[in-house]
Amino acid sequence: MPHFPSGDGRPPWRALVLTLFPDAFPGPLGVSLAGQARDAGIWSLDTLQIRDFGLGKHRQVDDTPAGGGAGMVLRADVLGPALDHASTLSPDAPLIYLSPRGTPLTQSLARSLAEGPGVTLLAGRFEGIDERVIAAKGLKEVSIGDYVLAGGEVAAMVLIEACIRLLPGVLGASESLTSESFETGLLEYPQFTKPRDWQGRAIPDILLSGDHKKIEAWRREQSEKLTADRRPDLLHPPHQKRS
Amino acid sequence: MPHFPSGDGRPPWRALVLTLFPDAFPGPLGVSLAGQARDAGIWSLDTLQIRDFGLGKHRQVDDTPAGGGAGMVLRADVLGPALDHASTLSPDAPLIYLSPRGTPLTQSLARSLAEGPGVTLLAGRFEGIDERVIAAKGLKEVSIGDYVLAGGEVAAMVLIEACIRLLPGVLGASESLTSESFETGLLEYPQFTKPRDWQGRAIPDILLSGDHKKIEAWRREQSEKLTADRRPDLLHPPHQKRS
Repeated sequence: MPHFPSGDGRPPWRALVLTLFPDAFPGPLGVSLAGQARDAGIWSLDTLQIRDFGLGKHRQVDDTPAGGGAGMVLRADVLGPALDHASTLSPDAPLIYLSPRGTPLTQSLARSLAEGPGVTLLAGRFEGIDERVIAAKGLKEVSIGDYVLAGGEVAAMVLIEACIRLLPGVLGASESLTSESFETGLLEYPQFTKPRDWQGRAIPDILLSGDHKKIEAWRREQSEKLTADRRPDLLHPPHQKRS
Repeated sequence: MPHFPSGDGRPPWRALVLTLFPDAFPGPLGVSLAGQARDAGIWSLDTLQIRDFGLGKHRQVDDTPAGGGAGMVLRADVLGPALDHASTLSPDAPLIYLSPRGTPLTQSLARSLAEGPGVTLLAGRFEGIDERVIAAKGLKEVSIGDYVLAGGEVAAMVLIEACIRLLPGVLGASESLTSESFETGLLEYPQFTKPRDWQGRAIPDILLSGDHKKIEAWRREQSEKLTADRRPDLLHPPHQKRS
């Protein structure tokens, strides 16, 4: 019988990252909750060096863009075999290419990926990757936000961290998942802790009242107000506007 | 006269991160373009351990949320002095708290931060930070996307990487900035490189035609089509819909 260190009969949730910079890992994924959960066998992290699939004695991985332009493009005949090898290591994981052109990462996408066996992530560099490998390997493109990074490594870490905190056993108190930003569709209400007075600023009286019903109503109201002020787009998502 | 290693008379762009996990850094910021630019003195990275400002012999940094609820909240009387110290180290940098409640990070925000002296970033953990410190220290809240992370460290790395690749001297060819996703308001067109044929898939003929005007028109058309298909919200941002 296989040994599953997470102890509940599940194999670890598996993150496999194809990268030219494996030294960037685990970085933030090695500390705190994520690091402890990895040590406990709840999830695993492996990297695959793209250069190992490079061509010739210089292990070339990229070339100039067809049609001209600045920068270099990662070759299909390098990434293809690298992705094929990844699929043998992690056969059931979805293949995701981190790209600003992708589907935006949301809490619900993170939740759906966390419920699966893991993820295989391709972290690009340079000007991008040959489009043919996206089609040939059925890569799903995912974007962590509307900005450009130097490479996909930090984006891969974001996606992985968003998923692993949702895995069973990672967070101590499971309730701490439910009131957070996006889990309710609203931004989180303001938090306060001791001391009661700090530099002339007091904790709102209602939070010290002990009246849990009123506290809950106040928090809900604060969340709604904050969301309406800062992110009205969350209250009226585009697909509703168009209907 | 002070010595500025970047050689063009500028002091390095300074990133200062307040964190409970300084070991998570530099992570992906230590490799490739970002790492080379740091070695060249174009930017600098320092961390400030929040626990050094903790209370009592156990250096306590957090306490239970006022009004009840799961998790722990970082205390204002710990973060306040930590932020004051950060301001002495990096007096002109904006103070930013990475939070899913914040203003979404965009390419234009990254550009505006890259044009300044640097950033001082507060990376939270647990259930968040005492709201009073946000108001008292004038923290600007910035979100890297609509998902929840285990902590602000990886979000700080994203913000820093988005900025530093825009600093003068970081990217080899300055043109490679201009055609990328979001710089034109559109998603980037598909890229191709050698070989001409790969597994029965060919590079589009037009890219091999040598007709630069046609190539440019094709790329523009592809960008527009991709953006309309995947991210119509970028073509019709909410503030235009409401007018």
